[in-house]
Amino acid sequence: MTPTPISHNKMFGGVQATYKHRSDACDCDMKVAVFTPDGVSTDTGDAPVLIWLSGLTCDTTNFQTKAGAQRVAAELGIVLVMPDTSPRGDDVPDTEDRYDFGKGAGFYLDATAKPWAKHYNMESYIRDELTAWISETLPVDIDRMGIFGHSMGGHGALTLHLKNPKLFKTCSAFSPIVAPSQVAWGRGAFEGYLGKDETKWADYDATELLMRGTTDTNILIDQGTDDQFLSEHLRTDIFTAACEKMGQDHTIRMQAGYDHSYFFIATFIEDHLRHHATRL
Amino acid sequence: MTPTPISHNKMFGGVQATYKHRSDACDCDMKVAVFTPDGVSTDTGDAPVLIWLSGLTCDTTNFQTKAGAQRVAAELGIVLVMPDTSPRGDDVPDTEDRYDFGKGAGFYLDATAKPWAKHYNMESYIRDELTAWISETLPVDIDRMGIFGHSMGGHGALTLHLKNPKLFKTCSAFSPIVAPSQVAWGRGAFEGYLGKDETKWADYDATELLMRGTTDTNILIDQGTDDQFLSEHLRTDIFTAACEKMGQDHTIRMQAGYDHSYFFIATFIEDHLRHHATRL
Repeated sequence: MTPTPISHNKMFGGVQATYKHRSDACDCDMKVAVFTPDGVSTDTGDAPVLIWLSGLTCDTTNFQTKAGAQRVAAELGIVLVMPDTSPRGDDVPDTEDRYDFGKGAGFYLDATAKPWAKHYNMESYIRDELTAWISETLPVDIDRMGIFGHSMGGHGALTLHLKNPKLFKTCSAFSPIVAPSQVAWGRGAFEGYLGKDETKWADYDATELLMRGTTDTNILIDQGTDDQFLSEHLRTDIFTAACEKMGQDHTIRMQAGYDHSYFFIATFIEDHLRHHATRL
Repeated sequence: MTPTPISHNKMFGGVQATYKHRSDACDCDMKVAVFTPDGVSTDTGDAPVLIWLSGLTCDTTNFQTKAGAQRVAAELGIVLVMPDTSPRGDDVPDTEDRYDFGKGAGFYLDATAKPWAKHYNMESYIRDELTAWISETLPVDIDRMGIFGHSMGGHGALTLHLKNPKLFKTCSAFSPIVAPSQVAWGRGAFEGYLGKDETKWADYDATELLMRGTTDTNILIDQGTDDQFLSEHLRTDIFTAACEKMGQDHTIRMQAGYDHSYFFIATFIEDHLRHHATRL
Protein backbone atom coordinates (compact mmCIF):
# COMPACT_ATOMS: atom_id res chain seq x y z
CA MET A 1 0.00 0.00 0.00
CA THR A 2 2.99 2.35 -0.42
CA PRO A 3 1.50 5.30 -2.29
CA THR A 4 2.80 6.63 -5.58
CA PRO A 5 2.17 10.40 -5.94
CA ILE A 6 0.34 11.32 -9.14
CA SER A 7 -0.44 15.00 -8.64
CA HIS A 8 0.20 17.69 -6.06
CA ASN A 9 -1.41 21.16 -6.00
CA LYS A 10 -1.32 23.84 -3.35
CA MET A 11 -4.83 24.94 -2.37
CA PHE A 12 -6.12 27.10 0.48
CA GLY A 13 -2.66 26.89 2.04
CA GLY A 14 -2.78 23.08 2.14
CA VAL A 15 -2.10 20.35 -0.38
CA GLN A 16 -4.53 18.65 -2.75
CA ALA A 17 -2.79 15.47 -3.89
CA THR A 18 -3.65 12.25 -5.70
CA TYR A 19 -1.91 8.93 -5.05
CA LYS A 20 -1.97 5.47 -6.52
CA HIS A 21 -1.65 2.42 -4.28
CA ARG A 22 -2.10 -1.33 -4.57
CA SER A 23 -5.38 -2.87 -3.41
CA ASP A 24 -5.39 -6.61 -2.73
CA ALA A 25 -9.16 -6.54 -2.19
CA CYS A 26 -9.76 -5.12 -5.67
CA ASP A 27 -6.71 -6.85 -7.15
CA CYS A 28 -5.64 -3.69 -8.97
CA ASP A 29 -4.06 -0.30 -8.41
CA MET A 30 -6.44 2.26 -6.93
CA LYS A 31 -6.25 6.04 -7.06
CA VAL A 32 -7.10 8.12 -4.01
CA ALA A 33 -7.17 11.91 -3.64
CA VAL A 34 -6.27 13.58 -0.35
CA PHE A 35 -6.55 17.16 0.89
CA THR A 36 -4.33 18.00 3.84
CA PRO A 37 -4.84 21.46 5.35
CA ASP A 38 -1.95 23.67 6.28
CA GLY A 39 -1.27 23.44 9.98
CA VAL A 40 -2.20 19.77 10.31
CA SER A 41 0.66 18.45 12.36
CA THR A 42 2.56 15.40 11.20
CA ASP A 43 4.05 15.28 14.70
CA THR A 44 0.82 15.01 16.66
CA GLY A 45 -1.09 13.28 13.85
CA ASP A 46 -4.40 13.98 15.53
CA ALA A 47 -6.49 15.64 12.81
CA PRO A 48 -10.02 14.42 12.08
CA VAL A 49 -10.49 12.73 8.71
CA LEU A 50 -13.48 12.44 6.40
CA ILE A 51 -13.86 9.87 3.62
CA TRP A 52 -15.95 11.10 0.67
CA LEU A 53 -17.59 8.47 -1.54
CA SER A 54 -18.56 9.69 -4.99
CA GLY A 55 -21.50 8.65 -7.14
CA LEU A 56 -22.07 6.79 -10.40
CA THR A 57 -19.67 7.62 -13.27
CA CYS A 58 -17.37 9.62 -10.96
CA ASP A 59 -13.73 9.01 -10.09
CA THR A 60 -11.29 10.73 -7.74
CA THR A 61 -11.48 14.05 -9.59
CA ASN A 62 -15.12 15.15 -9.31
CA PHE A 63 -15.33 16.05 -5.63
CA GLN A 64 -11.87 17.60 -5.42
CA THR A 65 -12.57 19.97 -8.33
CA LYS A 66 -16.28 20.78 -7.98
CA ALA A 67 -17.47 20.68 -4.37
CA GLY A 68 -15.49 23.52 -2.82
CA ALA A 69 -14.91 21.43 0.31
CA GLN A 70 -11.24 22.28 0.76
CA ARG A 71 -11.96 25.86 1.81
CA VAL A 72 -13.96 24.67 4.80
CA ALA A 73 -11.68 21.70 5.52
CA ALA A 74 -8.75 24.11 5.66
CA GLU A 75 -10.59 26.27 8.15
CA LEU A 76 -11.63 23.31 10.32
CA GLY A 77 -8.36 21.36 10.05
CA ILE A 78 -10.02 18.28 8.53
CA VAL A 79 -8.18 15.89 6.21
CA LEU A 80 -10.33 14.81 3.22
CA VAL A 81 -9.85 11.40 1.57
CA MET A 82 -11.52 10.81 -1.79
CA PRO A 83 -11.24 7.25 -3.16
CA ASP A 84 -12.35 6.02 -6.57
CA THR A 85 -15.80 4.52 -7.19
CA SER A 86 -14.74 1.11 -8.52
CA PRO A 87 -11.74 -1.02 -9.41
CA ARG A 88 -9.93 0.09 -12.58
CA GLY A 89 -7.60 -1.32 -15.20
CA ASP A 90 -7.61 -3.41 -18.34
CA ASP A 91 -8.04 -6.62 -16.32
CA VAL A 92 -11.18 -5.39 -14.59
CA PRO A 93 -14.44 -6.52 -16.22
CA ASP A 94 -16.83 -3.79 -17.32
CA THR A 95 -20.12 -3.27 -19.14
CA GLU A 96 -20.23 -1.46 -22.45
CA ASP A 97 -23.73 -0.03 -22.35
CA ARG A 98 -24.42 0.66 -18.66
CA TYR A 99 -23.29 3.67 -16.62
CA ASP A 100 -24.81 2.15 -13.48
CA PHE A 101 -22.85 -1.12 -13.40
CA GLY A 102 -19.18 -1.98 -13.81
CA LYS A 103 -16.41 0.61 -13.78
CA GLY A 104 -17.46 3.81 -12.02
CA ALA A 105 -20.28 1.91 -10.31
CA GLY A 106 -18.74 -0.30 -7.63
CA PHE A 107 -21.60 0.37 -5.16
CA TYR A 108 -19.18 -0.02 -2.22
CA LEU A 109 -19.95 -3.72 -1.81
CA ASP A 110 -18.05 -7.02 -2.06
CA ALA A 111 -19.29 -8.81 -5.16
CA THR A 112 -19.95 -12.56 -4.98
CA ALA A 113 -21.10 -13.24 -8.55
CA LYS A 114 -18.79 -13.97 -11.45
CA PRO A 115 -16.97 -12.30 -13.14
CA TRP A 116 -17.25 -9.37 -10.71
CA ALA A 117 -16.11 -11.02 -7.48
CA LYS A 118 -12.41 -11.00 -8.38
CA HIS A 119 -12.09 -7.20 -8.48
CA TYR A 120 -15.32 -5.56 -7.28
CA ASN A 121 -14.67 -5.60 -3.53
CA MET A 122 -15.07 -1.95 -2.69
CA GLU A 123 -16.47 -2.57 0.81
CA SER A 124 -13.31 -4.42 1.88
CA TYR A 125 -11.15 -1.86 0.11
CA ILE A 126 -12.73 1.14 1.85
CA ARG A 127 -13.33 -0.44 5.28
CA ASP A 128 -10.06 -2.36 5.65
CA GLU A 129 -7.38 -1.31 3.19
CA LEU A 130 -8.11 2.39 2.77
CA THR A 131 -8.58 2.98 6.48
CA ALA A 132 -5.31 1.11 7.20
CA TRP A 133 -3.56 3.24 4.58
CA ILE A 134 -5.04 6.40 6.11
CA SER A 135 -3.87 5.38 9.55
CA GLU A 136 -0.35 4.58 8.37
CA THR A 137 0.13 7.41 5.90
CA LEU A 138 -1.83 10.50 6.90
CA PRO A 139 -1.40 12.77 9.97
CA VAL A 140 -4.82 11.89 11.37
CA ASP A 141 -6.39 10.28 14.40
CA ILE A 142 -8.23 7.26 13.01
CA ASP A 143 -10.57 7.44 16.00
CA ARG A 144 -11.83 10.76 14.59
CA MET A 145 -13.05 9.43 11.24
CA GLY A 146 -16.36 10.15 9.50
CA ILE A 147 -17.81 9.20 6.13
CA PHE A 148 -20.03 10.96 3.62
CA GLY A 149 -20.93 10.78 -0.04
CA HIS A 150 -23.27 11.49 -2.93
CA SER A 151 -25.92 9.31 -4.57
CA MET A 152 -24.33 5.83 -4.90
CA GLY A 153 -21.67 7.23 -2.55
CA GLY A 154 -24.39 8.32 -0.12
CA HIS A 155 -25.55 4.69 -0.14
CA GLY A 156 -21.94 3.68 0.56
CA ALA A 157 -21.58 6.17 3.41
CA LEU A 158 -24.84 5.13 5.07
CA THR A 159 -24.18 1.38 4.83
CA LEU A 160 -20.54 1.61 5.93
CA HIS A 161 -21.51 3.78 8.90
CA LEU A 162 -24.46 1.62 9.93
CA LYS A 163 -22.33 -1.55 9.78
CA ASN A 164 -19.23 0.01 11.37
CA PRO A 165 -20.36 2.87 13.64
CA LYS A 166 -17.22 2.67 15.78
CA LEU A 167 -14.96 2.96 12.72
CA PHE A 168 -16.93 5.57 10.76
CA LYS A 169 -18.22 7.57 13.71
CA THR A 170 -20.09 10.29 11.82
CA CYS A 171 -22.16 10.11 8.65
CA SER A 172 -23.86 12.39 6.16
CA ALA A 173 -25.07 12.13 2.59
CA PHE A 174 -26.22 14.13 -0.40
CA SER A 175 -29.00 12.60 -2.51
CA PRO A 176 -28.28 9.04 -1.31
CA ILE A 177 -29.74 5.81 -2.61
CA VAL A 178 -31.32 4.73 0.68
CA ALA A 179 -33.25 1.58 -0.20
CA PRO A 180 -31.36 -0.06 -3.07
CA SER A 181 -33.28 -3.35 -2.81
CA GLN A 182 -36.44 -1.46 -3.75
CA VAL A 183 -35.23 0.72 -6.64
CA ALA A 184 -33.95 0.10 -10.16
CA TRP A 185 -30.39 1.39 -9.66
CA GLY A 186 -29.93 -0.82 -6.60
CA ARG A 187 -31.70 -3.92 -7.88
CA GLY A 188 -29.73 -3.85 -11.10
CA ALA A 189 -26.45 -3.56 -9.23
CA PHE A 190 -27.25 -6.12 -6.54
CA GLU A 191 -28.51 -8.73 -9.01
CA GLY A 192 -25.33 -8.36 -11.01
CA TYR A 193 -22.81 -8.20 -8.16
CA LEU A 194 -24.58 -10.39 -5.55
CA GLY A 195 -26.86 -12.70 -7.54
CA LYS A 196 -30.61 -13.14 -7.60
CA ASP A 197 -31.03 -14.34 -4.00
CA GLU A 198 -32.46 -11.16 -2.47
CA THR A 199 -31.80 -12.34 1.08
CA LYS A 200 -28.14 -11.53 0.38
CA TRP A 201 -28.98 -7.94 -0.51
CA ALA A 202 -30.07 -6.67 2.90
CA ASP A 203 -26.48 -6.40 4.08
CA TYR A 204 -26.00 -3.55 1.60
CA ASP A 205 -29.36 -1.81 2.02
CA ALA A 206 -29.25 1.21 4.35
CA THR A 207 -32.91 0.96 5.26
CA GLU A 208 -32.65 -2.75 6.03
CA LEU A 209 -29.50 -2.16 8.07
CA LEU A 210 -31.15 0.60 10.04
CA MET A 211 -34.07 -1.70 10.88
CA ARG A 212 -31.53 -4.03 12.52
CA GLY A 213 -30.32 -1.29 14.83
CA THR A 214 -29.57 2.40 15.18
CA THR A 215 -26.34 4.29 15.75
CA ASP A 216 -25.80 6.96 18.37
CA THR A 217 -24.94 9.83 16.04
CA ASN A 218 -27.08 12.24 14.04
CA ILE A 219 -27.22 11.25 10.36
CA LEU A 220 -27.47 14.31 8.09
CA ILE A 221 -29.03 13.99 4.63
CA ASP A 222 -29.60 16.77 2.09
CA GLN A 223 -31.87 15.94 -0.83
CA GLY A 224 -32.97 18.28 -3.61
CA THR A 225 -36.69 18.31 -4.40
CA ASP A 226 -36.00 18.83 -8.13
CA ASP A 227 -33.61 15.87 -8.31
CA GLN A 228 -34.52 13.90 -11.43
CA PHE A 229 -33.67 10.61 -9.68
CA LEU A 230 -35.59 11.25 -6.45
CA SER A 231 -38.85 9.42 -7.09
CA GLU A 232 -37.44 6.43 -8.96
CA HIS A 233 -34.00 5.73 -7.49
CA LEU A 234 -33.42 7.70 -4.29
CA ARG A 235 -36.68 7.55 -2.32
CA THR A 236 -35.55 9.56 0.69
CA ASP A 237 -39.00 9.00 2.17
CA ILE A 238 -38.26 5.30 2.81
CA PHE A 239 -35.21 6.07 4.96
CA THR A 240 -36.95 8.93 6.73
CA ALA A 241 -39.76 6.59 7.76
CA ALA A 242 -37.24 4.01 8.96
CA CYS A 243 -35.38 6.63 11.04
CA GLU A 244 -38.63 7.69 12.66
CA LYS A 245 -39.75 4.12 13.30
CA MET A 246 -36.41 3.10 14.81
CA GLY A 247 -35.70 6.32 16.68
CA GLN A 248 -32.47 6.98 14.74
CA ASP A 249 -31.18 10.49 15.38
CA HIS A 250 -31.39 12.18 11.97
CA THR A 251 -31.54 15.50 10.14
CA ILE A 252 -33.08 14.99 6.70
CA ARG A 253 -33.54 18.20 4.73
CA MET A 254 -35.55 18.36 1.52
CA GLN A 255 -33.94 21.32 -0.26
CA ALA A 256 -36.48 23.08 -2.48
CA GLY A 257 -35.53 23.50 -6.12
CA TYR A 258 -32.15 21.76 -6.01
CA ASP A 259 -31.17 18.93 -8.35
CA HIS A 260 -28.68 16.03 -8.34
CA SER A 261 -25.64 18.03 -9.48
CA TYR A 262 -22.45 19.27 -7.86
CA PHE A 263 -24.03 22.75 -7.88
CA PHE A 264 -26.27 21.34 -5.14
CA ILE A 265 -23.38 19.68 -3.30
CA ALA A 266 -21.29 22.88 -3.40
CA THR A 267 -24.18 24.83 -1.89
CA PHE A 268 -24.43 22.71 1.26
CA ILE A 269 -20.98 21.14 1.62
CA GLU A 270 -20.04 23.59 4.36
CA ASP A 271 -22.96 22.42 6.49
CA HIS A 272 -21.82 18.81 6.10
CA LEU A 273 -18.23 19.50 7.07
CA ARG A 274 -19.38 21.41 10.15
CA HIS A 275 -21.79 18.58 11.00
CA HIS A 276 -18.89 16.13 11.12
CA ALA A 277 -16.43 18.55 12.75
CA THR A 278 -18.63 19.19 15.76
CA ARG A 279 -19.04 15.44 16.34
CA LEU A 280 -15.48 14.17 15.78
CA MET B 1 -29.32 37.92 -29.49
CA THR B 2 -32.42 36.30 -27.98
CA PRO B 3 -30.98 33.65 -25.68
CA THR B 4 -31.83 29.96 -25.82
CA PRO B 5 -31.60 28.32 -22.38
CA ILE B 6 -29.37 25.23 -22.33
CA SER B 7 -29.11 24.42 -18.61
CA HIS B 8 -30.48 25.72 -15.34
CA ASN B 9 -29.31 24.67 -11.85
CA LYS B 10 -30.16 26.11 -8.47
CA MET B 11 -27.01 27.00 -6.53
CA PHE B 12 -26.47 28.98 -3.33
CA GLY B 13 -30.09 30.11 -3.55
CA GLY B 14 -29.56 31.62 -7.00
CA VAL B 15 -29.50 30.23 -10.53
CA GLN B 16 -26.52 28.96 -12.51
CA ALA B 17 -27.66 28.89 -16.13
CA THR B 18 -26.16 28.53 -19.58
CA TYR B 19 -27.57 30.14 -22.70
CA LYS B 20 -26.88 30.09 -26.42
CA HIS B 21 -27.22 33.26 -28.49
CA ARG B 22 -26.30 34.44 -31.97
CA SER B 23 -23.13 36.47 -32.42
CA ASP B 24 -22.80 38.51 -35.61
CA ALA B 25 -19.21 39.40 -34.73
CA CYS B 26 -18.21 35.73 -34.54
CA ASP B 27 -20.75 34.66 -37.18
CA CYS B 28 -21.84 31.69 -35.07
CA ASP B 29 -23.87 30.75 -32.02
CA MET B 30 -22.08 31.44 -28.76
CA LYS B 31 -22.68 29.88 -25.35
CA VAL B 32 -22.59 32.02 -22.21
CA ALA B 33 -23.01 30.96 -18.57
CA VAL B 34 -24.64 33.26 -16.03
CA PHE B 35 -24.98 33.10 -12.26
CA THR B 36 -27.75 35.25 -10.82
CA PRO B 37 -27.89 35.43 -7.02
CA ASP B 38 -31.13 35.12 -5.15
CA GLY B 39 -32.41 38.55 -4.18
CA VAL B 40 -31.13 40.32 -7.29
CA SER B 41 -34.11 42.38 -8.27
CA THR B 42 -35.43 42.21 -11.80
CA ASP B 43 -37.45 45.35 -10.94
CA THR B 44 -34.60 47.60 -9.94
CA GLY B 45 -32.05 45.88 -12.19
CA ASP B 46 -29.18 47.54 -10.41
CA ALA B 47 -26.87 44.65 -9.49
CA PRO B 48 -23.16 44.84 -10.27
CA VAL B 49 -21.94 42.41 -12.93
CA LEU B 50 -18.58 40.72 -13.52
CA ILE B 51 -17.46 39.17 -16.78
CA TRP B 52 -15.06 36.24 -16.34
CA LEU B 53 -12.78 35.37 -19.27
CA SER B 54 -11.40 31.84 -19.20
CA GLY B 55 -8.04 30.59 -20.41
CA LEU B 56 -6.71 28.34 -23.18
CA THR B 57 -8.67 25.12 -23.83
CA CYS B 58 -11.54 26.24 -21.56
CA ASP B 59 -15.18 26.84 -22.43
CA THR B 60 -18.16 28.10 -20.42
CA THR B 61 -18.03 25.17 -17.99
CA ASN B 62 -14.64 25.44 -16.25
CA PHE B 63 -15.17 28.52 -14.11
CA GLN B 64 -18.76 27.74 -13.18
CA THR B 65 -17.86 24.25 -11.91
CA LYS B 66 -14.38 24.71 -10.41
CA ALA B 67 -13.80 28.21 -9.04
CA GLY B 68 -16.33 28.34 -6.21
CA ALA B 69 -17.19 31.94 -7.14
CA GLN B 70 -20.96 31.62 -6.81
CA ARG B 71 -20.83 31.33 -3.01
CA VAL B 72 -19.23 34.77 -2.74
CA ALA B 73 -21.24 36.27 -5.59
CA ALA B 74 -24.43 35.15 -3.82
CA GLU B 75 -23.29 36.88 -0.63
CA LEU B 76 -22.29 40.08 -2.43
CA GLY B 77 -25.23 40.19 -4.87
CA ILE B 78 -23.00 40.12 -7.95
CA VAL B 79 -24.14 38.67 -11.29
CA LEU B 80 -21.42 36.56 -12.97
CA VAL B 81 -21.22 36.26 -16.76
CA MET B 82 -18.94 33.56 -18.22
CA PRO B 83 -18.59 33.61 -22.03
CA ASP B 84 -16.79 31.05 -24.18
CA THR B 85 -13.13 31.43 -25.18
CA SER B 86 -13.56 31.36 -28.97
CA PRO B 87 -16.12 30.99 -31.74
CA ARG B 88 -17.46 27.45 -32.16
CA GLY B 89 -19.14 25.30 -34.76
CA ASP B 90 -18.37 23.19 -37.79
CA ASP B 91 -17.94 26.29 -39.96
CA VAL B 92 -15.28 27.79 -37.70
CA PRO B 93 -11.68 27.08 -38.75
CA ASP B 94 -9.47 25.32 -36.23
CA THR B 95 -6.01 23.83 -35.82
CA GLU B 96 -5.55 20.13 -35.31
CA ASP B 97 -2.32 20.08 -33.35
CA ARG B 98 -2.33 23.30 -31.32
CA TYR B 99 -4.12 23.93 -28.02
CA ASP B 100 -2.97 27.58 -28.07
CA PHE B 101 -4.52 28.63 -31.38
CA GLY B 102 -7.95 28.13 -32.93
CA LYS B 103 -10.97 26.88 -31.01
CA GLY B 104 -10.60 27.44 -27.26
CA ALA B 105 -7.93 30.05 -27.94
CA GLY B 106 -9.63 33.18 -29.28
CA PHE B 107 -7.33 35.52 -27.33
CA TYR B 108 -10.13 38.10 -27.04
CA LEU B 109 -9.04 39.95 -30.18
CA ASP B 110 -10.47 40.72 -33.63
CA ALA B 111 -8.52 38.67 -36.17
CA THR B 112 -7.49 40.31 -39.44
CA ALA B 113 -5.70 37.41 -41.14
CA LYS B 114 -7.40 34.74 -43.22
CA PRO B 115 -9.07 32.35 -42.57
CA TRP B 116 -9.55 33.54 -38.97
CA ALA B 117 -11.01 37.00 -39.55
CA LYS B 118 -14.48 35.73 -40.49
CA HIS B 119 -15.21 34.19 -37.07
CA TYR B 120 -12.45 35.05 -34.58
CA ASN B 121 -13.70 38.46 -33.41
CA MET B 122 -13.87 37.91 -29.69
CA GLU B 123 -13.03 41.51 -28.80
CA SER B 124 -16.09 42.83 -30.64
CA TYR B 125 -18.19 39.99 -29.28
CA ILE B 126 -17.27 40.68 -25.64
CA ARG B 127 -17.09 44.48 -25.79
CA ASP B 128 -20.13 45.16 -27.98
CA GLU B 129 -22.46 42.19 -28.32
CA LEU B 130 -22.09 40.51 -24.95
CA THR B 131 -22.33 43.77 -23.02
CA ALA B 132 -25.44 44.74 -25.03
CA TRP B 133 -26.95 41.33 -24.28
CA ILE B 134 -26.11 41.75 -20.59
CA SER B 135 -27.73 45.17 -20.53
CA GLU B 136 -30.88 43.97 -22.27
CA THR B 137 -31.27 40.58 -20.60
CA LEU B 138 -29.86 40.58 -17.07
CA PRO B 139 -31.06 42.53 -13.98
CA VAL B 140 -27.84 44.53 -13.74
CA ASP B 141 -26.62 48.12 -13.88
CA ILE B 142 -24.24 48.14 -16.85
CA ASP B 143 -22.48 51.11 -15.23
CA ARG B 144 -21.40 48.73 -12.46
CA MET B 145 -19.47 46.26 -14.67
CA GLY B 146 -16.04 44.76 -14.06
CA ILE B 147 -13.93 42.17 -15.86
CA PHE B 148 -11.54 39.47 -14.74
CA GLY B 149 -10.02 36.27 -16.04
CA HIS B 150 -7.32 33.61 -16.02
CA SER B 151 -4.20 33.22 -18.16
CA MET B 152 -5.32 34.01 -21.75
CA GLY B 153 -8.47 35.37 -20.08
CA GLY B 154 -6.35 37.50 -17.77
CA HIS B 155 -4.79 38.97 -20.92
CA GLY B 156 -8.32 39.59 -22.20
CA ALA B 157 -9.45 41.25 -18.98
CA LEU B 158 -6.41 43.54 -18.80
CA THR B 159 -6.60 44.63 -22.46
CA LEU B 160 -10.37 45.15 -22.48
CA HIS B 161 -10.16 47.19 -19.26
CA LEU B 162 -7.20 49.27 -20.40
CA LYS B 163 -8.90 50.06 -23.73
CA ASN B 164 -12.37 50.59 -22.25
CA PRO B 165 -11.98 51.75 -18.64
CA LYS B 166 -15.38 53.45 -18.59
CA LEU B 167 -17.12 50.25 -19.78
CA PHE B 168 -15.17 47.70 -17.73
CA LYS B 169 -14.62 49.82 -14.64
CA THR B 170 -12.78 47.28 -12.48
CA CYS B 171 -10.20 44.67 -13.40
CA SER B 172 -8.38 41.72 -11.90
CA ALA B 173 -6.57 38.65 -13.19
CA PHE B 174 -5.16 35.29 -12.20
CA SER B 175 -1.91 34.24 -13.89
CA PRO B 176 -2.41 36.58 -16.87
CA ILE B 177 -0.39 36.77 -20.06
CA VAL B 178 0.72 40.39 -19.63
CA ALA B 179 3.13 40.96 -22.51
CA PRO B 180 1.93 38.72 -25.35
CA SER B 181 4.13 40.41 -27.96
CA GLN B 182 7.18 39.20 -26.03
CA VAL B 183 6.23 35.57 -25.23
CA ALA B 184 5.64 32.41 -27.27
CA TRP B 185 1.92 32.01 -26.50
CA GLY B 186 1.21 35.59 -27.51
CA ARG B 187 3.51 35.77 -30.54
CA GLY B 188 2.11 32.54 -31.94
CA ALA B 189 -1.45 33.79 -31.56
CA PHE B 190 -0.81 37.31 -32.84
CA GLU B 191 1.14 36.17 -35.91
CA GLY B 192 -1.69 33.82 -36.80
CA TYR B 193 -4.64 36.10 -36.07
CA LEU B 194 -3.09 39.51 -36.87
CA GLY B 195 -0.26 38.80 -39.32
CA LYS B 196 3.47 39.34 -39.12
CA ASP B 197 3.41 43.16 -38.88
CA GLU B 198 4.18 43.54 -35.18
CA THR B 199 3.09 47.17 -35.13
CA LYS B 200 -0.48 45.82 -35.25
CA TRP B 201 0.06 43.74 -32.12
CA ALA B 202 0.42 46.54 -29.56
CA ASP B 203 -3.32 47.11 -29.52
CA TYR B 204 -3.70 43.71 -27.81
CA ASP B 205 -0.69 43.83 -25.52
CA ALA B 206 -1.53 44.83 -21.93
CA THR B 207 1.94 46.17 -21.22
CA GLU B 208 1.98 48.25 -24.43
CA LEU B 209 -1.53 49.54 -23.69
CA LEU B 210 -0.54 50.53 -20.17
CA MET B 211 2.44 52.49 -21.52
CA ARG B 212 -0.07 54.57 -23.53
CA GLY B 213 -1.94 55.54 -20.37
CA THR B 214 -3.17 54.41 -16.98
CA THR B 215 -6.65 53.85 -15.59
CA ASP B 216 -7.92 55.20 -12.29
CA THR B 217 -8.69 51.87 -10.60
CA ASN B 218 -6.53 49.40 -8.73
CA ILE B 219 -5.66 46.39 -10.91
CA LEU B 220 -5.39 43.20 -8.85
CA ILE B 221 -3.24 40.30 -10.09
CA ASP B 222 -2.57 37.00 -8.33
CA GLN B 223 0.25 34.88 -9.74
CA GLY B 224 1.52 31.56 -8.39
CA THR B 225 5.28 31.26 -8.01
CA ASP B 226 5.19 27.55 -8.96
CA ASP B 227 3.21 28.21 -12.15
CA GLN B 228 4.86 26.16 -14.90
CA PHE B 229 4.10 28.91 -17.46
CA LEU B 230 5.37 31.87 -15.42
CA SER B 231 8.88 32.35 -16.77
CA GLU B 232 8.15 31.59 -20.43
CA HIS B 233 4.60 32.80 -21.14
CA LEU B 234 3.26 34.94 -18.29
CA ARG B 235 6.16 37.19 -17.19
CA THR B 236 4.31 39.08 -14.47
CA ASP B 237 7.50 41.06 -13.90
CA ILE B 238 7.10 42.94 -17.19
CA PHE B 239 3.66 44.28 -16.25
CA THR B 240 4.74 45.03 -12.69
CA ALA B 241 7.58 47.18 -14.02
CA ALA B 242 5.20 48.96 -16.41
CA CYS B 243 2.74 49.68 -13.56
CA GLU B 244 5.53 51.14 -11.48
CA LYS B 245 6.92 53.18 -14.35
CA MET B 246 3.52 54.58 -15.33
CA GLY B 247 2.14 55.01 -11.82
CA GLN B 248 -0.76 52.63 -12.43
CA ASP B 249 -2.54 51.75 -9.19
CA HIS B 250 -1.96 48.01 -8.79
CA THR B 251 -1.88 45.09 -6.36
CA ILE B 252 0.27 42.31 -7.77
CA ARG B 253 0.67 39.36 -5.44
CA MET B 254 3.18 36.56 -6.06
CA GLN B 255 1.56 33.64 -4.24
CA ALA B 256 4.21 31.23 -2.97
CA GLY B 257 3.85 27.60 -4.03
CA TYR B 258 0.72 27.97 -6.15
CA ASP B 259 0.48 26.74 -9.75
CA HIS B 260 -1.63 27.54 -12.84
CA SER B 261 -4.65 25.41 -11.90
CA TYR B 262 -8.19 26.06 -10.72
CA PHE B 263 -7.03 24.94 -7.26
CA PHE B 264 -5.14 28.25 -7.23
CA ILE B 265 -8.09 30.23 -8.58
CA ALA B 266 -10.48 28.72 -6.03
CA THR B 267 -8.13 29.70 -3.21
CA PHE B 268 -8.16 33.42 -4.03
CA ILE B 269 -11.43 33.94 -5.92
CA GLU B 270 -13.10 35.45 -2.85
CA ASP B 271 -10.45 38.18 -2.69
CA HIS B 272 -11.09 39.05 -6.35
CA LEU B 273 -14.86 39.27 -5.98
CA ARG B 274 -14.47 41.52 -2.95
CA HIS B 275 -11.92 43.63 -4.85
CA HIS B 276 -14.51 44.32 -7.54
CA ALA B 277 -17.47 44.65 -5.16
CA THR B 278 -15.89 47.44 -3.14
CA ARG B 279 -15.15 49.41 -6.33
CA LEU B 280 -18.40 48.97 -8.29
